[in-house]
Amino acid sequence: MTDENPAFASRVSVLQVEEGVELAPKFDRDGLLPVVTTAASDGVLLMLGYMNLEALQKTIATREAHYFSRSRQKLWRKGETSGLVQKVVEIRVDDDQDAIWLRVDVVGDVSCHVGYRSCFYRSVELENAEAPVKLRFVEDSKMMDPVAVYGDLPNPTKL
Amino acid sequence: MTDENPAFASRVSVLQVEEGVELAPKFDRDGLLPVVTTAASDGVLLMLGYMNLEALQKTIATREAHYFSRSRQKLWRKGETSGLVQKVVEIRVDDDQDAIWLRVDVVGDVSCHVGYRSCFYRSVELENAEAPVKLRFVEDSKMMDPVAVYGDLPNPTKL
Repeated sequence: MTDENPAFASRVSVLQVEEGVELAPKFDRDGLLPVVTTAASDGVLLMLGYMNLEALQKTIATREAHYFSRSRQKLWRKGETSGLVQKVVEIRVDDDQDAIWLRVDVVGDVSCHVGYRSCFYRSVELENAEAPVKLRFVEDSKMMDPVAVYGDLPNPTKL
Repeated sequence: MTDENPAFASRVSVLQVEEGVELAPKFDRDGLLPVVTTAASDGVLLMLGYMNLEALQKTIATREAHYFSRSRQKLWRKGETSGLVQKVVEIRVDDDQDAIWLRVDVVGDVSCHVGYRSCFYRSVELENAEAPVKLRFVEDSKMMDPVAVYGDLPNPTKL
């Protein structure tokens, strides 16, 4: 067990981490790990977020997705502003336990702050790969109005 | 366009990044961005990797997944050792263009160095959430023998 948190095991061997049945997550130098969130209904990738230890604990305990907001530098219960809460159906961990996969049902079925269902609403044009590389939209309409939902909150996208 | 690479656009505004049709990726302070790789056939999450600029360029140009290996600190053409090449069906980018989604067909249908199809072969026990948190295997057998495939190459998993 870690000193900080008896919920998770210490990492003692590659065999334990890869083939064991203890959750022994590895956080990066910022105390975060990446989280892949997909729709339990149809497997669509909704977003890629980050969790710190507290967010992972709260997600397991409440079965609602919690992340660490890098733009706001704080714990973020997904949907706390928008109401677009993610109900956790399954949590998986990868071989070396430095990444999490959340399968979720989303209240309102929207996960992207821009208004699309998925954050991954654009696809790289592979047929015409001349520089500069172009994108095309694969979601054709927004499912919510960000201004109505978020008002004048700062946009999390940074340049 | 960036100075280093005319294939990608410079990031000039949030509107351009979120709603535009130019690929203008954002790499982190290590020059990397996370990549979510799913099976085109059934949507299963296979792995989470990282790309640097060169890996993203090569993936687009060759339509075979290239990553940046953090353990080896070098460009990594997936399958170069194992033969388990990932053929790219689609590349998507997220709202703020700091994450990539690859949909792939995998030669041999195995993507995890431990031998399972997916790196995410274990699920967190949510029914019995007493500390310490336990995992259960959701893939019940390995699809390749890592020793036969990789020999005595160093294991990429780090403690």
